[in-house]
Amino acid sequence: MLSPLKLTEAFGRVTDYWSPKVIGQVNDQLLKVAKLKGEFVWHAHDGEDELFYIVKGALRIEFDDGPVHLAQGDMLTVPRGVRHNPVADEECWVMLIEPASTKHTGDTVTERTRSLEDQLG
Amino acid sequence: MLSPLKLTEAFGRVTDYWSPKVIGQVNDQLLKVAKLKGEFVWHAHDGEDELFYIVKGALRIEFDDGPVHLAQGDMLTVPRGVRHNPVADEECWVMLIEPASTKHTGDTVTERTRSLEDQLG
Repeated sequence: MLSPLKLTEAFGRVTDYWSPKVIGQVNDQLLKVAKLKGEFVWHAHDGEDELFYIVKGALRIEFDDGPVHLAQGDMLTVPRGVRHNPVADEECWVMLIEPASTKHTGDTVTERTRSLEDQLG
Repeated sequence: MLSPLKLTEAFGRVTDYWSPKVIGQVNDQLLKVAKLKGEFVWHAHDGEDELFYIVKGALRIEFDDGPVHLAQGDMLTVPRGVRHNPVADEECWVMLIEPASTKHTGDTVTERTRSLEDQLG
C-alpha cells in the first residue's frame, strides 16, 4: 500500500542548513527538502534544470542579471547552465526537484558541498 | 530575467474539472495544475510515474488494494503501471508532475481524456 508524504513533516529529517535530503522520486527526478539560511555559493549545473518551491519563508536567488525574489508558494525552475546563488536572509524551507546526476554545487566544490550519499542519509 | 510562478495563482488558468494545464517544466518533466471534483476513471500509465501534490482540499486515490487519502500539503507518487482512480468528494486543487509522454487516462480513453495539446492551451 502506498502512503502519502506530508511535505512539511519531511523537513523534520533536515538537521543542517544547505544540506538537502531526498524524500521521494518521480520518474528520473529526485524530490528533496532543504532548510536554507544565509548565503550559499555561486554555481551552475551544466546538464540539469533545478526547481525551487518555497514551502516556508522567502528566498532570493541571485543571477548574473539580478536577483529573483521568491515568497512562500512560489516556484522557479533554474535552467541548466545558468549561474545562480541562493540567499536566505531568514530561515527558508524549500523543496527541490532535480535528477540524481545533479551535483550540489555544480563544479564549484566547497566545504558546503554535499554528495548524493549525504542527501540520502 | 526569470520570473517566479505563484502556484495558487496558476490555478486561475484552469477552467474545467479534470482538465490539467501545463504551468512549467523541470528537465523532462511537466508541471501541471488541475481542479478535480467527483470521480475520474480507472487507468494506469504503463511507462510513467505520476506525482500528486495537494494544494487545496483533499483527494482519495483508489487502488486495487484500497484507497489512499491525501490532505492539503500531502504528496504521493503513483508508480508506473499501477491502476488508480482519483476521487474528490469536494473540489480539490492538485499539482501533477509527469513526463510529456504521459497519456491523461492511460490506455482508457473516455470523453474526459485530454490531449497534451489541450493541456498546453
